[in-house]
Amino acid sequence: MDVVSFTPTPEQYAWTFGGVPAVASVQPGTVLKLWSEDAFAGRITSRDQRPSQILDTRRLNPQTGPFHVTGAEPGDTLALHFVDIQPARDWAASATLPFFGALTGSERTATLQASLPERVWIYEVDRVARTARFAAGTGDFTVDLPLDPMLGTVGVAPALREVRTSLAPDTHGGNLDTPELRPGTTIYLGVNVPGALFSIGDGHYRQGEGESCGTALEGAMNSTVIVELIKGGAPAWPRIESDTHLMTVGSARPLEDAWRSGQVEMVRWVAGLCGLEEMDAYQLVSQVCLSPIANVVDTNYSAVTKVAKAFLPGARAYDGMHAHLRQVAATVR
Amino acid sequence: MDVVSFTPTPEQYAWTFGGVPAVASVQPGTVLKLWSEDAFAGRITSRDQRPSQILDTRRLNPQTGPFHVTGAEPGDTLALHFVDIQPARDWAASATLPFFGALTGSERTATLQASLPERVWIYEVDRVARTARFAAGTGDFTVDLPLDPMLGTVGVAPALREVRTSLAPDTHGGNLDTPELRPGTTIYLGVNVPGALFSIGDGHYRQGEGESCGTALEGAMNSTVIVELIKGGAPAWPRIESDTHLMTVGSARPLEDAWRSGQVEMVRWVAGLCGLEEMDAYQLVSQVCLSPIANVVDTNYSAVTKVAKAFLPGARAYDGMHAHLRQVAATVR
Amino acid sequence: MDVVSFTPTPEQYAWTFGGVPAVASVQPGTVLKLWSEDAFAGRITSRDQRPSQILDTRRLNPQTGPFHVTGAEPGDTLALHFVDIQPARDWAASATLPFFGALTGSERTATLQASLPERVWIYEVDRVARTARFAAGTGDFTVDLPLDPMLGTVGVAPALREVRTSLAPDTHGGNLDTPELRPGTTIYLGVNVPGALFSIGDGHYRQGEGESCGTALEGAMNSTVIVELIKGGAPAWPRIESDTHLMTVGSARPLEDAWRSGQVEMVRWVAGLCGLEEMDAYQLVSQVCLSPIANVVDTNYSAVTKVAKAFLPGARAYDGMHAHLRQVAATVR
Amino acid sequence: MDVVSFTPTPEQYAWTFGGVPAVASVQPGTVLKLWSEDAFAGRITSRDQRPSQILDTRRLNPQTGPFHVTGAEPGDTLALHFVDIQPARDWAASATLPFFGALTGSERTATLQASLPERVWIYEVDRVARTARFAAGTGDFTVDLPLDPMLGTVGVAPALREVRTSLAPDTHGGNLDTPELRPGTTIYLGVNVPGALFSIGDGHYRQGEGESCGTALEGAMNSTVIVELIKGGAPAWPRIESDTHLMTVGSARPLEDAWRSGQVEMVRWVAGLCGLEEMDAYQLVSQVCLSPIANVVDTNYSAVTKVAKAFLPGARAYDGMHAHLRQVAATVR
Repeated sequence: MDVVSFTPTPEQYAWTFGGVPAVASVQPGTVLKLWSEDAFAGRITSRDQRPSQILDTRRLNPQTGPFHVTGAEPGDTLALHFVDIQPARDWAASATLPFFGALTGSERTATLQASLPERVWIYEVDRVARTARFAAGTGDFTVDLPLDPMLGTVGVAPALREVRTSLAPDTHGGNLDTPELRPGTTIYLGVNVPGALFSIGDGHYRQGEGESCGTALEGAMNSTVIVELIKGGAPAWPRIESDTHLMTVGSARPLEDAWRSGQVEMVRWVAGLCGLEEMDAYQLVSQVCLSPIANVVDTNYSAVTKVAKAFLPGARAYDGMHAHLRQVAATVR
Repeated sequence: MDVVSFTPTPEQYAWTFGGVPAVASVQPGTVLKLWSEDAFAGRITSRDQRPSQILDTRRLNPQTGPFHVTGAEPGDTLALHFVDIQPARDWAASATLPFFGALTGSERTATLQASLPERVWIYEVDRVARTARFAAGTGDFTVDLPLDPMLGTVGVAPALREVRTSLAPDTHGGNLDTPELRPGTTIYLGVNVPGALFSIGDGHYRQGEGESCGTALEGAMNSTVIVELIKGGAPAWPRIESDTHLMTVGSARPLEDAWRSGQVEMVRWVAGLCGLEEMDAYQLVSQVCLSPIANVVDTNYSAVTKVAKAFLPGARAYDGMHAHLRQVAATVR
Repeated sequence: MDVVSFTPTPEQYAWTFGGVPAVASVQPGTVLKLWSEDAFAGRITSRDQRPSQILDTRRLNPQTGPFHVTGAEPGDTLALHFVDIQPARDWAASATLPFFGALTGSERTATLQASLPERVWIYEVDRVARTARFAAGTGDFTVDLPLDPMLGTVGVAPALREVRTSLAPDTHGGNLDTPELRPGTTIYLGVNVPGALFSIGDGHYRQGEGESCGTALEGAMNSTVIVELIKGGAPAWPRIESDTHLMTVGSARPLEDAWRSGQVEMVRWVAGLCGLEEMDAYQLVSQVCLSPIANVVDTNYSAVTKVAKAFLPGARAYDGMHAHLRQVAATVR
Repeated sequence: MDVVSFTPTPEQYAWTFGGVPAVASVQPGTVLKLWSEDAFAGRITSRDQRPSQILDTRRLNPQTGPFHVTGAEPGDTLALHFVDIQPARDWAASATLPFFGALTGSERTATLQASLPERVWIYEVDRVARTARFAAGTGDFTVDLPLDPMLGTVGVAPALREVRTSLAPDTHGGNLDTPELRPGTTIYLGVNVPGALFSIGDGHYRQGEGESCGTALEGAMNSTVIVELIKGGAPAWPRIESDTHLMTVGSARPLEDAWRSGQVEMVRWVAGLCGLEEMDAYQLVSQVCLSPIANVVDTNYSAVTKVAKAFLPGARAYDGMHAHLRQVAATVR
């Protein structure tokens, strides 16, 4: 088993999906141990900062990667299994930025109102107790929140010769911002360019569904990822598998179209896995799916459709790839 | 304790919120034992039926009620606690109807395509095992799904002199179609007219989040409901409390506006309960909330914002009303 | 020819479509001379007022009507021809209200920002020169704008037993807020209840497309309307005919669904009038239609699809009803 | 005056904004005489074709360019004046493609229905009479439509290091698909990268507002364009000036956000040009603007806000650039 460790220097950060040469080429089966900087590129460190003065809009969501996967061709399926996603710091930062977030007018939901106040919250992290402490900016309210580490951004180079900012989620993955991208899951992404060129970043120590204020508990992360390649079978939208659930993630605006995209992807996935006619799969998914919103703040909004494997007897996605990767992971950890 | 039982005759069904005289007047504190017919008004009973020929669009979602609550005035808060919601039949029906549902063009998402096929699924219900059996229309795939009974429709008479079909969800509640409206929860609704005039209906033996195909496991239901009244404090949008969570439900189109409405409602509720400044409440809700979609098929779409009470130390909604109702419920069941 | 004049007393204003008894019954062919109050119910008269303190949200868009049309049955088509729409005052009022309008967070596009300032603009109207003077609230900028009188609100009682506020546009017409509803046009509305029960109101001395700030040049109006009835043929959405164009008006959210609804209505109308297969009508409408937005501020947004009759050789809507009404109008004016 | 003619070979077509080296460098003041291929890359030529079999989704909307403008820096404003846009062929093609267009489910408004039929319409063009003949695919209906040539696609390289397909409209311009981009207009685009790197393409011999079926009368075009550069002053969204109107074009989903973006851009433009406080400009724009929809089919939807200069006495955009370019144009034609 190849194990490759990589910690980018700031000059090596990628800010886009596509348009950047690979930092390394890896064989399918490789275990990657990756460090990633936080979404603010590490610039937010104190409650006293004003994000709009500190941040550079061209330097948000720095990516670790991209990695070139040997043998990956357009139409193939990249499988990335997250063995572990561990906070790399004892603190995390969250912030409100002018005209960014779900409960404010924004660049496109354009209004004439004054912006909400800019604020920074610094969370102290207890990596033993697995908690992060919310402390109100005004008053002395505090509460410890359980850590639930995840990666906001995982994606490949997009189709149609595009290069997309690491702030955008779409069919290529990217800034999905769903708490479902936890350790123990496998994400399946359609390959658009030779080598797939995937990268990761935007670690969240935890996140509410929707990421309402625009930022989560942003923090640097140590991730262990197994890379696998499935020839052919590229899904239209990102798919995620956990030990218990199958998931699809649609990204679009308005939010119903994000959800519809993920729903159609799931209906067709279930139809294929269970040998069901499409209307039967539609009915079954309608009655059993969970639909947690991922983000309502990014360039596209993202919504997850989630189906318990218990309701899909006999279904075996990608020929048992996830179970296989779990076994490999057990030897890595 | 007043206990009132009511089973409407078909002539007594209400088809709207507002615009209908009360079937009874009840005192706050009353326990209601209510039977409600299914969303199809009981007309779908067999796989061989064609819903568009059987159903009358003027006779969907029959309501049990409305009930006049003594002393309820505009601006007050009606609290309805669901002691129990029990399937009243050994089967449930689901169906696809032409141009209705999330994964088809519809009346307003108007397209020129042919409709999806009309289909009926009949679920056998095992009330002991608490399961309902999905059987594919084509092929022999079957799977037992756990019962998770809920009411699709709970609401009061709307504001602004309006009368709304029982198919519409909005600020008055109505056809919210969220699986969160389970036994053991309390819903808080703002009162718009003297007596509140609430009704219930549209029982689902279970439902996926989003109700993608447009219908759930529709079935007649026996519900036990405790009615309470809180003077003043009318919420802008329906609020739900369970033993573990606070929830708000926004209804609008596009879906992001449904979610935003519920989010703002939650931010303000949390700010008030925890003594937080609004930006702090925005931050806290952003990091802890769950955002399960309710429905993406009704006249308005509905989305839930859900916050664990564990993250709101000291919060006590409506002066402990839910805990009080749970205690009363224990004496009823 | 019956000519009926009606000026409501404030007690006679209707605030809803449906739910109100008719003020009069009229035969098809009747000419109505109607006075209508402005959308503010006449309460905004000075720049020094604060609309939120002056206005009553339960008393906006007062309607003149409803009128019962003899013989009108569900499924029929009501034709209303606007012979004339004349400002009844020498001034008009416009205003911004907190959280109402397109360029502000609102009840459903819910945000946490502070509201925009409340402002009132009073326009002096020169009924001879046919202009209204815009005068900036700050500074001395003024400009004379041409009058272009129209009715914001024309509708019938809705279907499904509903009663809708006069603020809402939908399939029944209502608060369409399109400048296309000018003198010389005929509107066709599907009848939902016996007698149709139509009303008019919300006169605008002029309005930009979209009604961005939420209000137009609001003013009392004298309207001359010819009432006609076509048996059967109820359109799904309001249709408008002028001497030169056919129009449809869809109302929904998001705005694309409003437009799609009107587009499908137009494609089918054109297909029927020109004997075209639906795909051919789709192609033709795609290449010739105008798509002026009506409003992006009401409960539903409204968008117009407009096709020049010149591109529809041989088309004759409703058996020449509009031309007939124009001839009748010539004898009335 | 530099006059540069350029007709790309198929190998020289650009398929993106950004990510492609300039085909030429031009000085501000240069007159470009450009030929552009149609959106189908010339592949649709007959009614008998099936577009989905003929077209390559990676080769749609071929661009002529990009051109590097000497001295253009990020934050500057590129002005492109369209002296002439002339059909280069005696025919044009339109087509429906599966799951593309406004009145069908699509990639993101994802549904499970079967696609609409694929069809091709070939329009005969009479360049003397300035008409194009619509002929129904079924039956013998024909009608001559006036030519109204325009460019669907004009844009610069995007910001944030992105490369966008020529199918997407956004802040950088791109596939705006508005009939307002006619001969005699000047478009102002914010410069994002050194040299601006603009290109044009997607000529339409005419187009309805919204481009409902997804394609217009697509045809090769000869365009004469004057290139100018304004230091600084980059608009947030594309602005267009004609002899009589100022326009802004917002692109987003849902459609209301496209329109809001253009509205805010216009309110701020008018405020600046007329010395108005923002609320006064909001009021004025609300009462005078036209709001024609551009497209409801592309990755983002586009909407135009259009204000007659007659309502903006004293306004002089970009120091009279448009009038200057009109004078230069008079010497070119």
